[in-house]
Amino acid sequence: MATEVTKASYVEAGKAYDRDMRYIPDRITAEPGRSRDRLDVTADAETGALQVPTWPVEPGRYRLVAARACPWANRSIIVRSLLGLEDVISLGTPGPTHDQRSWTFDLDPDGRDPVLGYERLQEAYFARFPEYPRGITVPAVVDVPTKAVVTNDFPQITHDLFFEWREFHRPDAPNLWPEEVREEMEVVMKRVFTEVNNGVYRCGFAGSQETYDAAYERLFTALDWLEERLTDRRYLMGDAITEADVRLFTTLARFDAVYHGHFKCNRNKLIEMPALWGYARDLFQTPGFGESIDFEQIKRHYYVVHSDINPTQIVPLGPDPSGWATPHGRDAL
Amino acid sequence: MATEVTKASYVEAGKAYDRDMRYIPDRITAEPGRSRDRLDVTADAETGALQVPTWPVEPGRYRLVAARACPWANRSIIVRSLLGLEDVISLGTPGPTHDQRSWTFDLDPDGRDPVLGYERLQEAYFARFPEYPRGITVPAVVDVPTKAVVTNDFPQITHDLFFEWREFHRPDAPNLWPEEVREEMEVVMKRVFTEVNNGVYRCGFAGSQETYDAAYERLFTALDWLEERLTDRRYLMGDAITEADVRLFTTLARFDAVYHGHFKCNRNKLIEMPALWGYARDLFQTPGFGESIDFEQIKRHYYVVHSDINPTQIVPLGPDPSGWATPHGRDAL
Repeated sequence: MATEVTKASYVEAGKAYDRDMRYIPDRITAEPGRSRDRLDVTADAETGALQVPTWPVEPGRYRLVAARACPWANRSIIVRSLLGLEDVISLGTPGPTHDQRSWTFDLDPDGRDPVLGYERLQEAYFARFPEYPRGITVPAVVDVPTKAVVTNDFPQITHDLFFEWREFHRPDAPNLWPEEVREEMEVVMKRVFTEVNNGVYRCGFAGSQETYDAAYERLFTALDWLEERLTDRRYLMGDAITEADVRLFTTLARFDAVYHGHFKCNRNKLIEMPALWGYARDLFQTPGFGESIDFEQIKRHYYVVHSDINPTQIVPLGPDPSGWATPHGRDAL
Repeated sequence: MATEVTKASYVEAGKAYDRDMRYIPDRITAEPGRSRDRLDVTADAETGALQVPTWPVEPGRYRLVAARACPWANRSIIVRSLLGLEDVISLGTPGPTHDQRSWTFDLDPDGRDPVLGYERLQEAYFARFPEYPRGITVPAVVDVPTKAVVTNDFPQITHDLFFEWREFHRPDAPNLWPEEVREEMEVVMKRVFTEVNNGVYRCGFAGSQETYDAAYERLFTALDWLEERLTDRRYLMGDAITEADVRLFTTLARFDAVYHGHFKCNRNKLIEMPALWGYARDLFQTPGFGESIDFEQIKRHYYVVHSDINPTQIVPLGPDPSGWATPHGRDAL
């Protein structure tokens, strides 16, 4: 594969890892300038008026660009599929590796996204902001007519796929944000984000033994809490799949393949935690989840891109993924 | 810990790993110039005459220098203990890390071996060969009167502890080289050495994806063979512990702690192979084996010394070693 990958630096010596959470805040909404969701942080709680630019919901207008390798992008692929939005918002999929400048469409014919015609996702960012100063990240939503990026704000993207695109959901789409558990769900999602989704990166990109040790303790404290929570609950919020499950799943799916070894999250493998492993398989075997996972792309992404922690860029052949297809027994819960 | 570790190179880009097997061939024998073991490769099969310099067996004269971290040195610590030679041959233990020049006695008071007075094992090599050109390795047997190294030929060292020091073994010492299975045992030990003991290093120090892939396949093919062999045999050669078990054990003890992640031997952990895991715990819980293992030193050795494959030199906190103490149920075999 003709990927050009320059040596990148993810670890800062002596420092803890700190994720840059500044994203393009634009939103695509059903009603111009307003959000359907009263609790959204970018909206006025009383009026629903948004404090960011908005774009209109319009079938066929937008392209979701989401690399299968990336856990943050993986969320949007799953939610789009669960809600039945495949014919409404198209999907572009960059390959698993990228250089310091951009994800690339190296898996597509002639190395170009067939709809946008771009070789590099960077082009969509520059079409909107010619001097865009931050990382070129996935997921990104691109406006097809102008070929310009709309937003790369990953938690907002899945939120709005649910709340703003409701009239285009399939009839039996799951309620990913049930009102009756919303408050607790926000607490759970926040802890899952800081301690688990981002927690594995904090282990892997630790710049000192001390910051690694602290990150490891935080991660496994949270995984022990989740193991207990999922012992008598089928899903994080009870009997039905919610956005919280999508967010936890994308980290669990990568745990044994990448985080356990590459990021040194190695107190135990996921398969050694019975409730979490059953839960992860249950989701994996649910339409929309498992088919979004490509273990080869996932491993290739992390082991090739993070050359500062894997200088040989050799991609491990393990682990054996066959366990993902085994019975989970969680239906009994 | 004030260990001075310079950046070392273990991986050669594009190449497979090739262990330098040239050691100092001197032997300590019960009879000058001759070996008790007719099958030894350095001896004439008819007469037992050795083609290498020999030193006399003499209680209290020699010091075995063996780092607890190192699997090759670990063999000699276990065999010395199984045979009850602790009062006959003393033991010096360098710390887990070393630089490109030498292992050091950094764990000892004032950083010096209390018997030899050396800070660095290198000094014992130079006392014998002032321009010693190869690696300063453990295990090494040192002649205490001259403080000079006798040999560092690790398979020969454990062989001779058994055959040449027999009159000093404890009365109930195990027969580690039973004549009746000797021929098959040599075949088993050879395969264990090339495919497993050295096989894990071939994975970890592979200089290309192709050489890694080939090394991984060889390793797990051998582990599958061992898993099957140990399903209906308590030990490698049957009902009793032999030298072959000592040699396999020292790699298995390090498998989940180091080789699985650091060397990318990650099709599965040892704990996922029921016969091998039961076998490893059985040995671990046998006097002479478990107390020779120090997981902290083992992890520190690999993760700090091999800075070319772990540039941050951060040592993982996992895996949880508590499973080593759990019942193995192998006595029933």
